[in-house]
Amino acid sequence: MSGSVTVIGLGPGDPRYLTPAAQAALDAAEDLIGYVPYVARVPERPGLTRHASDNRVEVDRARHALELAAAGRRVAVVSGGDPGVFAMAAALFEALEAGNPAWRSLPITVEPGITAMLAAAARVGAPLGGDFCAISLSDNLKPWEVITARLDAVLAADLVVALYNPVSRARPWQLGAALDLAAEHRAPDTPVILARAVGRPDEAVRVLPLAKARHAEADMATLVMIGASATRLIPRDGREPFVYTPRSVAR
Amino acid sequence: MSGSVTVIGLGPGDPRYLTPAAQAALDAAEDLIGYVPYVARVPERPGLTRHASDNRVEVDRARHALELAAAGRRVAVVSGGDPGVFAMAAALFEALEAGNPAWRSLPITVEPGITAMLAAAARVGAPLGGDFCAISLSDNLKPWEVITARLDAVLAADLVVALYNPVSRARPWQLGAALDLAAEHRAPDTPVILARAVGRPDEAVRVLPLAKARHAEADMATLVMIGASATRLIPRDGREPFVYTPRSVAR
Repeated sequence: MSGSVTVIGLGPGDPRYLTPAAQAALDAAEDLIGYVPYVARVPERPGLTRHASDNRVEVDRARHALELAAAGRRVAVVSGGDPGVFAMAAALFEALEAGNPAWRSLPITVEPGITAMLAAAARVGAPLGGDFCAISLSDNLKPWEVITARLDAVLAADLVVALYNPVSRARPWQLGAALDLAAEHRAPDTPVILARAVGRPDEAVRVLPLAKARHAEADMATLVMIGASATRLIPRDGREPFVYTPRSVAR
Repeated sequence: MSGSVTVIGLGPGDPRYLTPAAQAALDAAEDLIGYVPYVARVPERPGLTRHASDNRVEVDRARHALELAAAGRRVAVVSGGDPGVFAMAAALFEALEAGNPAWRSLPITVEPGITAMLAAAARVGAPLGGDFCAISLSDNLKPWEVITARLDAVLAADLVVALYNPVSRARPWQLGAALDLAAEHRAPDTPVILARAVGRPDEAVRVLPLAKARHAEADMATLVMIGASATRLIPRDGREPFVYTPRSVAR
């Protein structure tokens, strides 16, 4: 077998955030596999076969990548952000573990990318300046009781909380429930960042107090960050305030 | 004032992980400020004044950057990894908040980078495939009791735990204590990743069962990841196993 699979992080969307390593891996690919909008980000070129698929078929897509590689193709699987953060890398290894044992001798590499929480944090200041966590709000793959238990634990421990997959058409209420839970642990003026489509033309980043974030709109392309108790604003004349979390916790 | 400050993430070290946006910001800088090894990563060129400083003077360094910018200079402050993750961005906003109010009208931007946990995860598979957190083990800036309470909470909630700043010459015992705490929550064969200097010529990445990780050497340049209960290995003939965390949690 001369084929290979590289799982590539495209970053938040702007090519200025695509690493040279990820670009080189895209340039070397013969087959490009991924969710429709991520495949659409990679320019067409001769010699590159594109296989765009719908959302929520991650393991099928991963199996397809491994089959093509086993047949000798150089395959690139693309994810937005970082492929290891709520994206295609774990799905690929799930398919590898369950699949043809011969696939384990394929060269499989992962090219990291700028994940949404890092891009969103950079836009507003340094909200991830202290300890933080990343939690997916999707209950397609885990029970809602596990999600709320985890949120309760990390809010009580005073971490900054980055929420991935906060909302979808099929899951309209989870973000509100998570923010209600946050309100049990944090003051009403705790900064909440709703960062939509960072690095893309339709980017929209809002910073709202927790008490108002409950009523803000968000969608699948939104990354939500809930501040820790020390997260705060630095006001500026005529401009959006900066948001940051101090590195220190008082003794 | 025509000056500016850009806080730039250099990524893990290999220039192949430096984003084009970060490279452009470095190219535009007149003054380069940072901890000695990070400043050393940026090639010298005419028109670029370098100000390398020692570790643990982050706020002094940030103030210096703001003073130079207020005097009209285009200043780049460099961090390894991502500047918003246990690095210079929060220090800059601390200095901004406490300093000359006129500094608040300076253009201040943050350029994200590939933080150590993303680079380390990509090297071994997809260990961050589920919910995860990032905690600094340094008790220079927060009490050890806060750190252990946070570790206890995130381990009980079954998150993957990325430990930044696990060890320094002045703090030799914290990593062992954190792994002992992990052993109260996780099975002895839980994968622990010790990733040193990822993306640099002296890179050394080890995957050990928790029971053995306790006795492994680590230093300031090491990023440690403790798996969740579901994190597992995919063995391969004659090669290091992959490590991944499934996306699903059983109902």
